Amino acid sequence: MQRIILDCDPGVDDALALMLALAAPEKIDLAGVTTVAGNVPLESTTGNARGLLALAGRADIPVHAGCARPLMRAVGHRSIMHGTEGLGGVRLEPDTVPLGSAHAVDFIIDTVMANPSAITLCPIGPLTNMALAMVKEPRLADNIREIVFMGGAAFGPGNTTAAAEFNIYVDPHAAHIVLSSGVKLTMFGLDVTRTVVVDQEYLKALETSAGHIRRKLALMLRAYAKGDPCLHDPCVIAWLIDPSLFSGTDAFVEVDCATGPNHGRTIAHVSERHRAGREPNCHVVTGAAKENVLELLSRHLSRLEPQT
Amino acid sequence: MQRIILDCDPGVDDALALMLALAAPEKIDLAGVTTVAGNVPLESTTGNARGLLALAGRADIPVHAGCARPLMRAVGHRSIMHGTEGLGGVRLEPDTVPLGSAHAVDFIIDTVMANPSAITLCPIGPLTNMALAMVKEPRLADNIREIVFMGGAAFGPGNTTAAAEFNIYVDPHAAHIVLSSGVKLTMFGLDVTRTVVVDQEYLKALETSAGHIRRKLALMLRAYAKGDPCLHDPCVIAWLIDPSLFSGTDAFVEVDCATGPNHGRTIAHVSERHRAGREPNCHVVTGAAKENVLELLSRHLSRLEPQT
Amino acid sequence: MQRIILDCDPGVDDALALMLALAAPEKIDLAGVTTVAGNVPLESTTGNARGLLALAGRADIPVHAGCARPLMRAVGHRSIMHGTEGLGGVRLEPDTVPLGSAHAVDFIIDTVMANPSAITLCPIGPLTNMALAMVKEPRLADNIREIVFMGGAAFGPGNTTAAAEFNIYVDPHAAHIVLSSGVKLTMFGLDVTRTVVVDQEYLKALETSAGHIRRKLALMLRAYAKGDPCLHDPCVIAWLIDPSLFSGTDAFVEVDCATGPNHGRTIAHVSERHRAGREPNCHVVTGAAKENVLELLSRHLSRLEPQT
Amino acid sequence: MQRIILDCDPGVDDALALMLALAAPEKIDLAGVTTVAGNVPLESTTGNARGLLALAGRADIPVHAGCARPLMRAVGHRSIMHGTEGLGGVRLEPDTVPLGSAHAVDFIIDTVMANPSAITLCPIGPLTNMALAMVKEPRLADNIREIVFMGGAAFGPGNTTAAAEFNIYVDPHAAHIVLSSGVKLTMFGLDVTRTVVVDQEYLKALETSAGHIRRKLALMLRAYAKGDPCLHDPCVIAWLIDPSLFSGTDAFVEVDCATGPNHGRTIAHVSERHRAGREPNCHVVTGAAKENVLELLSRHLSRLEPQT
Repeated sequence: MQRIILDCDPGVDDALALMLALAAPEKIDLAGVTTVAGNVPLESTTGNARGLLALAGRADIPVHAGCARPLMRAVGHRSIMHGTEGLGGVRLEPDTVPLGSAHAVDFIIDTVMANPSAITLCPIGPLTNMALAMVKEPRLADNIREIVFMGGAAFGPGNTTAAAEFNIYVDPHAAHIVLSSGVKLTMFGLDVTRTVVVDQEYLKALETSAGHIRRKLALMLRAYAKGDPCLHDPCVIAWLIDPSLFSGTDAFVEVDCATGPNHGRTIAHVSERHRAGREPNCHVVTGAAKENVLELLSRHLSRLEPQT
Repeated sequence: MQRIILDCDPGVDDALALMLALAAPEKIDLAGVTTVAGNVPLESTTGNARGLLALAGRADIPVHAGCARPLMRAVGHRSIMHGTEGLGGVRLEPDTVPLGSAHAVDFIIDTVMANPSAITLCPIGPLTNMALAMVKEPRLADNIREIVFMGGAAFGPGNTTAAAEFNIYVDPHAAHIVLSSGVKLTMFGLDVTRTVVVDQEYLKALETSAGHIRRKLALMLRAYAKGDPCLHDPCVIAWLIDPSLFSGTDAFVEVDCATGPNHGRTIAHVSERHRAGREPNCHVVTGAAKENVLELLSRHLSRLEPQT
Repeated sequence: MQRIILDCDPGVDDALALMLALAAPEKIDLAGVTTVAGNVPLESTTGNARGLLALAGRADIPVHAGCARPLMRAVGHRSIMHGTEGLGGVRLEPDTVPLGSAHAVDFIIDTVMANPSAITLCPIGPLTNMALAMVKEPRLADNIREIVFMGGAAFGPGNTTAAAEFNIYVDPHAAHIVLSSGVKLTMFGLDVTRTVVVDQEYLKALETSAGHIRRKLALMLRAYAKGDPCLHDPCVIAWLIDPSLFSGTDAFVEVDCATGPNHGRTIAHVSERHRAGREPNCHVVTGAAKENVLELLSRHLSRLEPQT
Repeated sequence: MQRIILDCDPGVDDALALMLALAAPEKIDLAGVTTVAGNVPLESTTGNARGLLALAGRADIPVHAGCARPLMRAVGHRSIMHGTEGLGGVRLEPDTVPLGSAHAVDFIIDTVMANPSAITLCPIGPLTNMALAMVKEPRLADNIREIVFMGGAAFGPGNTTAAAEFNIYVDPHAAHIVLSSGVKLTMFGLDVTRTVVVDQEYLKALETSAGHIRRKLALMLRAYAKGDPCLHDPCVIAWLIDPSLFSGTDAFVEVDCATGPNHGRTIAHVSERHRAGREPNCHVVTGAAKENVLELLSRHLSRLEPQT
């Protein structure tokens, strides 16, 4: 059993990650959901998180809104991919799920410090909340159990620029703070998440399933990205449920904050020669048993629905 | 009357700035003191702030500890200049002044948001607390009356490197956040603060004054920097008391965060050609009527003491 | 028929490229060989070029020594891979091949300017000679037919650092000059050259061949890189002989000269969105019919030998 | 007696520097004039150099055209200051002075290598020719007697940007090559050259002088910069004639090639602490006895004219 905080910017693939986290109660205890500006503005990511919990009937999970902007860059979103509101045009009912009064940064600090070495943080959006929490409370890093994040591309190209993946590009300085924190890190970058692609058949099965939650998710997925969508964020949760479906390597990962064509690129140094004395700071996941991951997802999603 | 929060890292010249702020109640209403890591570690700057308030008999002023580290850089201090504990070896009695339970970042946010357009922030250490508050609460910038800060060198050389002044060098990314915030800014850089130098005669007058507060401050100043010490931080407060003692120019000021020999340098673009379409974001103070500033300081410090 | 200048730093794979260029007289007219510091110092690369021409009995091909150092970086070599002298310990007899009195930069300028739009330049080492020639003679770029180079990694990781390939890493500023020259460019980066690997069987066939040239080359290859060696440089010549063996894509390619973890990395922007208005400046070769390339190589090398 | 090559981009103040070099034959033996793109394009700087020698009746001094572009940047000129043709609208007769067939880079290399440790190079434009010569001939640096250059601003602001002086800004990478060459360097930056200002009285005296050369120079100066013109370049030659008119300091000087607001800035590290183990590589001239320099200039210029 892992107690986690899901730090997200829903976002269609965030929505699936959140649902998956709710669907594996024997493996994942969701201590709270925090939101950050990313795919869409903070107001939307927060509303979406609440709406998704409402859809799942889980008003008991606290939602805390976090940072509305990155540290250094101007804000940029991806409504082209996720729709103006972030969920591919699907409307939910957020109001039944209360919004926590604490800022996400404080909720993270308070929860971690009250549960030393017990909380796994799962940021699947820009790392702004993580970074702010670490700077505000310097003892935080020593008390986090581990951080499993979706972000970057350790070896291959990016998606927002030729070099950089969206979550890291939006706030590379926050990523630097997290990568140099000394916390145990597991990275799900585009190297692996790009391979976990939903095909039309899978999508159709979801659309025609008995459950209304799955049908809503299918609507979102259908709108998300033309063609076959990648399930970036759900990989993080799938790994928590069954790490045997993934493979990877330890590396020293850093983020390029220089002004140049590789701004926001994550780069993994694996070999001792390239690490040049720097110890690995991150487990970089590079491979997924794609079919099994997709099967794990649909199996779990079906558990969210009232069994007829 | 200006209501201010003094955000400091005492530090000998911070100590004088704080005392000066306390000594001008008809001009300055000190809403609180916040501390940050800088000249010495946070624990010391916080203890020193409390000790200085105790020395002045002002346990009523709330003290809130802030960030113990910069955003991106490793921490670095200047105990060589300010002594291991930061006050040139002078010991004070902090315990009679309570430490506020809120983090400095939250104290700043709460105070500003409760008093829209009424609070002037006076950071005289690294700008970490300012930056974190702005990122955590994006409405903050619109509600700050103005920021008057000691930091940088707009035109001439630095002190920590040939290019960079200490406060900005320690956390250039925080400086970037503040400089690009849109808040009304007044900058006291080395250009002007370097000229406000205490000579031996002035120091002796302080040492032989009737008041024990001034004698303590003289002890600190004596230990602070070999030779003739610069009163960097008190300039900020002197300007709040009597801006006519200073002169300056409006400019677009930015901080160099690139990896190179000018890392952490502030640079002021004054002429329209050099600003290239960027509006001035800062009033850069460049000149001081040094003798009058020193006279203002000693006149006010004498008011802190019981008049015999 | 293409008239080329081979600009090289032999180097074992350079040696094969040179031999291949000599072995296809119906396709390639080798106007001259120029040398540059790279795999080993200039003195060695020049001696090796002369020795290789001697081995092939081609003292008629002029050799011109070029730059002994990169523009900005300190010199660095790769004698670990290529042996101290650059040819895996194999000794040749350079003295029978005269050294041209002109500097490589001037030989390149003079040859190109005397044959407008007729000369293809084939740099397979650092691009220092190319860059110097372009800066010295600004009309050069307009008179080069095209440049086909081995260097960089357009999409994947480097070999000298995790980000950068050796030829570009040694002189990224020279690469920038070439990439922004407007000359028609074809790039053979690690993306493709890494796939053209010689296996043990191929090596053995070469070692046991009838010809003494091939046996010498096999000796070099045996010493070059433990395991299975990549034929980086010969790809450039193979493409000139038979471009149908390769596939690629047009892209805007730039080199990262910033101080950061991606210093010296080449990055290809393919999609219109990532190019952001910048037209493709380079044909990036990404695929090779490996077996055919190897077969082309061995078939041609056999033609260098007296047929018994 | 010092044997020099003047590497220039006339340019009004270059014109005065050249004339001053011709006017002190007992101190300066002008081995040649080389030209570079800078204030105006190469064609103009070369024509101007020839025209100025024609004006002085010195067709015996060889002129060699050099680089028409910087290493990395796009070309930029300053015709606003120097007039479209570079000499403030004054037309000269270049044709009587022959143009040397060798490229400036080769003239510099050949002259220095033929006169080991005997030639002082005086670049008063962008350092492109110097850099190319050093990269092309790696033994050059060891054979140059010294380099005395106009360029940069060691401590204060620039003129082309708030940070950078024109000559260095145009080709900072060339400046890096020169500054890291190990050659004995003397730097005349804006710190000192800005103080050598011609006032209206001085200008009038030149305009009403008996000599036609001086009257031509006065015409150029009148057009050069509105207000009171700075004699940047002549300082270099004045120093060769009488170094006692200047004062300075040894420092480690480097140029900022990073992409940021200080791109192209030169920065001098004087104190041991700021040099951090790096030995001084440059004598930085910071002060001038302005009146004496101006007097030296007018006294020498009068010697160029036929004495009536």
